[in-house]
Amino acid sequence: MKVVTLVGGVGGAKLAYGLSRIVPPDDLTIIVNTADDFWHYGLRICPDLDTITYTLSGLVDPVNGWGLAEDTTQMLEALRRYGEDAWFRLGDRDLATHLIRSERLRNGERLTTVTAHLTAKLGILPAILPMTDETVATKVMTREQGELDFQTYFVRHRWQPVVTALRFDGLEQAKLTSEGRRALQQADIILIGPSNPWLSIDPILSLPGVRALLATLSIPRVAISPIVGGKAIKGPAAKLMAELGFSVSASEVASHYGELINGFVLDQVDYGQYVPQKQVLTCETVMNSEQDKVQLAETVLRWIKGWK
Amino acid sequence: MKVVTLVGGVGGAKLAYGLSRIVPPDDLTIIVNTADDFWHYGLRICPDLDTITYTLSGLVDPVNGWGLAEDTTQMLEALRRYGEDAWFRLGDRDLATHLIRSERLRNGERLTTVTAHLTAKLGILPAILPMTDETVATKVMTREQGELDFQTYFVRHRWQPVVTALRFDGLEQAKLTSEGRRALQQADIILIGPSNPWLSIDPILSLPGVRALLATLSIPRVAISPIVGGKAIKGPAAKLMAELGFSVSASEVASHYGELINGFVLDQVDYGQYVPQKQVLTCETVMNSEQDKVQLAETVLRWIKGWK
Repeated sequence: MKVVTLVGGVGGAKLAYGLSRIVPPDDLTIIVNTADDFWHYGLRICPDLDTITYTLSGLVDPVNGWGLAEDTTQMLEALRRYGEDAWFRLGDRDLATHLIRSERLRNGERLTTVTAHLTAKLGILPAILPMTDETVATKVMTREQGELDFQTYFVRHRWQPVVTALRFDGLEQAKLTSEGRRALQQADIILIGPSNPWLSIDPILSLPGVRALLATLSIPRVAISPIVGGKAIKGPAAKLMAELGFSVSASEVASHYGELINGFVLDQVDYGQYVPQKQVLTCETVMNSEQDKVQLAETVLRWIKGWK
Repeated sequence: MKVVTLVGGVGGAKLAYGLSRIVPPDDLTIIVNTADDFWHYGLRICPDLDTITYTLSGLVDPVNGWGLAEDTTQMLEALRRYGEDAWFRLGDRDLATHLIRSERLRNGERLTTVTAHLTAKLGILPAILPMTDETVATKVMTREQGELDFQTYFVRHRWQPVVTALRFDGLEQAKLTSEGRRALQQADIILIGPSNPWLSIDPILSLPGVRALLATLSIPRVAISPIVGGKAIKGPAAKLMAELGFSVSASEVASHYGELINGFVLDQVDYGQYVPQKQVLTCETVMNSEQDKVQLAETVLRWIKGWK
């Protein structure tokens, strides 16, 4: 059973980790949002790819869910000594990832190839694929400050500005990678992780041809709600939904994906929410421990395999 | 009395530090070799500029004489986890310098401007000028391994290969900066630091027009010998001289500079060495303590001011 999962950062990484423990590596492909990526001090920073990579390698900071465990910030403090604002956290160990990646990209390598190199060196066996090798950049229109680059909104302003619209710069010119396309075409199950539907999953789905491709696949296409009890487990998903005029609920997430999915997983606290025209699984979806991650992956896959 | 000093790395930095303690900042210009500079993981690394900057700011590692005191190597260790060779030491704090510089250079700033920014932020008042804004790269022809990039020879192979020739790639197209030219034209004294004459000073002197410019200046032009008692205080100067067929002595350094200098300072252990057609000062030149550095600068300047 070939499983492809579409993910953003921390929430998606937890699901991907759970899957990686129970799906044979050759049967698991993780397609990752890259619309949050940006250049900073000449470094190409790919927050979601790194969160997935660090999580699957076991090196992730267990408290934050991103960055490397026990990383230090000597470089950042030295930046500040030079009077730099240094608003984006760059751990010292984390820098090695960015330096290797940036140099290889400048030398003309595809992000897909660079990611395969980095993940292989950390002993990761499943394929971690950036959604595209082209540059896509989320732009956030805010009420207070006009349009902001994503990381300026997300990190510098701690997602406090009120969002009125989103756009993905470069998306029309970008392409799903051939590796990603092949994985989707060969998939037996597609899982959309409990990531931010608007910020993390929409960029992947909105790549030219991806929605049309998914519509041709007569296989289980299941999303896991990142909204639990009307709140986001982490990050701005709930705040963003409210600002964009949606009710903040799991069922609203399901209707956002619409016919793109034919199955939906919501948390037990949202038992009974109205999710029409889809297979629905209600279970514990909040992943704290390692066991939670494996168990959610197992529960969801077992449920899907039982579909008629 | 306007003083211009031409320097390379550690030895020159010690003299520059001594000068900076006794010469008013507006009257001191430090012109620095950049032929050792190179790109590494997308970072523009300028070893001599950084050694001078770190020394004058008081941040230098007092044991090595280069790098930042109490720096850490988390990034390097993370590079190695990715299987990288990581042969060039990049301290975590040190990285901030390279990141700021590289980004500004990529944005089209001149190295002169970038250096002025970095040194000002560290509270350094005298002008520290790269010899040129263009790229010059020392290439070392070795008996064992053919031609090597300078840092490959110097750091990776710890200057152990036997050198048969040197060349400075890009030198013919490079220009002394306008700031450097003005400083030399307005100088009352030119001091060549106790740096490696072949590797650190020759690139500066060999920039188009520099030797001709110096020849027009009827002022004291004094070199301090980096060779003391037939040995180099630090680095490959003595080994290199022998390999290039010179006798390893202070007087050989003086004759290498020839008519470009009209004064020469040699260490007291070399008292009596034959240095024709120049003013000669014999004194303690080895700089260990802070006091040594100030004292050598004082002694040399007082001696020059007494010239008839």
